[in-house]
Amino acid sequence: MKHTKVKDLLKSATTLQDVNAKGWVRTFRNNQFIALNDGSTIHNIQCVVDFENTPEETLKRITTGAAISVIGTLVESKGAGQKYEIQVAKLEILGDSDAEKFPMQPKKHSLEFLRENAHLRVRTNAFGAIMRVRSVLSYAVHNYFHEKGFVYVNTPIITGSDAEGAGEMFKVTALPFDNPPRTEEGEVNYKEDFFGKETNLTVSGQLEGETFAMALGQIYTFGPTFRAENSNTSRHLAEFWMIEPEVAFNDLDDNMDLAEDFIQYVIKYTLDKCQDDLKFLETRLLDEEKSKPQAERSEMSLLEKLNFVLDNNFKRVSYTEAIDILKNSTPNKKKKFQFIIEEWGADLQSEHERYLVEKHFKCPVILYDYPANIKAFYMRLNEDGKTVRAMDILFPGIGEIVGGSQREERYEVLVEKMKALGIDEEELWWYLDTRRFGSAVHSGFGLGFERLVLFVTGMTNIRDVIPFPRTPGNAEF
Amino acid sequence: MKHTKVKDLLKSATTLQDVNAKGWVRTFRNNQFIALNDGSTIHNIQCVVDFENTPEETLKRITTGAAISVIGTLVESKGAGQKYEIQVAKLEILGDSDAEKFPMQPKKHSLEFLRENAHLRVRTNAFGAIMRVRSVLSYAVHNYFHEKGFVYVNTPIITGSDAEGAGEMFKVTALPFDNPPRTEEGEVNYKEDFFGKETNLTVSGQLEGETFAMALGQIYTFGPTFRAENSNTSRHLAEFWMIEPEVAFNDLDDNMDLAEDFIQYVIKYTLDKCQDDLKFLETRLLDEEKSKPQAERSEMSLLEKLNFVLDNNFKRVSYTEAIDILKNSTPNKKKKFQFIIEEWGADLQSEHERYLVEKHFKCPVILYDYPANIKAFYMRLNEDGKTVRAMDILFPGIGEIVGGSQREERYEVLVEKMKALGIDEEELWWYLDTRRFGSAVHSGFGLGFERLVLFVTGMTNIRDVIPFPRTPGNAEF
Repeated sequence: MKHTKVKDLLKSATTLQDVNAKGWVRTFRNNQFIALNDGSTIHNIQCVVDFENTPEETLKRITTGAAISVIGTLVESKGAGQKYEIQVAKLEILGDSDAEKFPMQPKKHSLEFLRENAHLRVRTNAFGAIMRVRSVLSYAVHNYFHEKGFVYVNTPIITGSDAEGAGEMFKVTALPFDNPPRTEEGEVNYKEDFFGKETNLTVSGQLEGETFAMALGQIYTFGPTFRAENSNTSRHLAEFWMIEPEVAFNDLDDNMDLAEDFIQYVIKYTLDKCQDDLKFLETRLLDEEKSKPQAERSEMSLLEKLNFVLDNNFKRVSYTEAIDILKNSTPNKKKKFQFIIEEWGADLQSEHERYLVEKHFKCPVILYDYPANIKAFYMRLNEDGKTVRAMDILFPGIGEIVGGSQREERYEVLVEKMKALGIDEEELWWYLDTRRFGSAVHSGFGLGFERLVLFVTGMTNIRDVIPFPRTPGNAEF
Repeated sequence: MKHTKVKDLLKSATTLQDVNAKGWVRTFRNNQFIALNDGSTIHNIQCVVDFENTPEETLKRITTGAAISVIGTLVESKGAGQKYEIQVAKLEILGDSDAEKFPMQPKKHSLEFLRENAHLRVRTNAFGAIMRVRSVLSYAVHNYFHEKGFVYVNTPIITGSDAEGAGEMFKVTALPFDNPPRTEEGEVNYKEDFFGKETNLTVSGQLEGETFAMALGQIYTFGPTFRAENSNTSRHLAEFWMIEPEVAFNDLDDNMDLAEDFIQYVIKYTLDKCQDDLKFLETRLLDEEKSKPQAERSEMSLLEKLNFVLDNNFKRVSYTEAIDILKNSTPNKKKKFQFIIEEWGADLQSEHERYLVEKHFKCPVILYDYPANIKAFYMRLNEDGKTVRAMDILFPGIGEIVGGSQREERYEVLVEKMKALGIDEEELWWYLDTRRFGSAVHSGFGLGFERLVLFVTGMTNIRDVIPFPRTPGNAEF
């Protein structure tokens, strides 16, 4: 007999004879009411057991976490909050779960405890919801770009280049660490390594992505990227997924339009498809914040916040304007910022970004035209000779969610910049080829996918929105 | 003025005043006819230059590879093979391309030369088509699973586990290779490494995927996986993308049904969406094979081959039946196989798989119920005590494209198997938890994405269907 998903049973048009549901017991009340979940929806289906005609031995095995199969009749439920329930005719225990030992007890666990049980936390309401939302969000990403004719490109994960410049890299090797082959000079001989050279894990697919954009027009990547940085914060992961579109002939304004339209599309798509999960996460967040002082609570509920992003344009502000606002801000004057903004050219810290987004503009902000010397080598130099066509998108509660730029398309300017920064031209010969042969204005950005999931789910620690987080000291599972 | 994609211009419903196209020059004939391509389609749009009124200086710069912008009128073309062309009123050179130096000359290049120029080969017809087909295929993967309610799961790339058992692993480290910290005993002290332990690049997301399937019901992964194996063949990559669905409550028959339905869906989807590119690749393959003796040419054209897979069920054959067929086959009797099949229990080599698929059955084949001792520890032992519920799908010209199994759901049987193979139970405590708490029948498989792209594009070397191939000695770009 084929079983039916709980999601489909709950939205059945009619009552049904002979249905089969399979899933895991969430709770079992009064020796009679099983809350059964199969992961297809946040909702459980109530299965009513005829306890008088069920062996005591079987009833004892209906414990939280056990896998069961029930066959019965889908009938209208007398209980509140559910349209249907299953009157169980036959119940089979597929896999037991020792109630004493099963770590996911039907009670509230700390997020830290759940992280240590990342393989089981997805059996809770919250993490089931988060992972379904994450999945739908990622599908929305692919939908958006495919509808617009972008080509999905898998840029390499193992890279022979260490010039990407976005951060510290992990080394990849097949050499024996204990006693690697050495050159006559005593250096590790990478010529004998798997790839015949030193290799690292990519920090960004942008440079390779640009070469494809200059052939296919519009491309995007969506894959894992890595940072070997000892950042033990709620916003950083050593392994995270990044989305990097790159478009030939787009200037910075087009790039901002694309980023804004893209973010609004994927949020709207997810709002439409994940109503039940998002409602649950909204309630979860409200509960969470009840214990906080009023001033620290969110001004908007989760759904209000998501709709706010859809209904309002992102505020576009030049770096220069932002510096003026910050210089004249109360926390700057009262020296409440850890880093006081004294003059044009200062790099913006997280505290400044949050002030702009959360206190001053109270909406997503796109900052653009940054000083050249605080941004990457490949960004297009403005005619003023001191700023570059960079943009960062800042989100309330999240901080930087997007970093992008128009790229320097002029061969000579790019080479000069690389020389000044000591970046090896020979190593990036292929990147420079895009400027040697048929160069053109082009732009792109990178969006940290987990930061987007963080925003959409209302979670506050990035380790809770990726299945198995990798952070300093953590590579379990 | 906003430019229009070549794809959209070519399928315009009417002629148009004032259109702007941007792209790269493929060829320039008679000082008059530009074949312009922007990557949105395999087709070029012909741009007719009024050479009498265009400065000689500009005409000289219209070279293969140059990026240009043309403004003009979209008119019906008098030339063959195209409905429309652009009568150019204004032409701007965006980026020059030195005709002497540009590596992608308008002539046939060897695939080996193109691999060395992987950043530019995508500007050729063949590689533009391959990369568009690859992109559409990957979108089809996401469509299929999302339509069926699967949750997309990003299993970790960096793994602390080396028990996955699918092959040799690359080490990942942030320690200084030259002089790593050592314990008192002189061993490399991985406690001081980034993750506080030895870490590797994943060879499969299956084990982590299973933990999610046992909570969310139906999940799939689609991400990069790695093998540090010195396989210099046309079918192996050190870095490749794998699709791994895993479904709770599915047995091996369900698993075969899923795999077959999935493969047929994505091929059909791509046939529908990529007609132009596939037609081009079909012609390319015919040309390629013209130089081969008749006997080595494909019996079917590319499109015939793809439709054949859609129209015919995959042949399901047990390992035991396959051994019988092979034992009695002419190449076995005449000792033409390198490895002669003598008895039940022999591991099948590529030559045997090809014989079954290409000579005997002449269609995709699913082999199942393999001897336990040639398959992985997590596969479900049959009641016969000597075979496991494994399946491999074999494709003509490709060999193994899918490997999967019903998983061993019985805790005691699994632990006993791990002990026999010396697999550390403590390291896989989290994997064993799925059998400790609410275990159930479940199944899944892995499909090597590049092998699928190989099959669909008719290419013969796997290095030609991934943007930047990683193989022994090759990590350029």
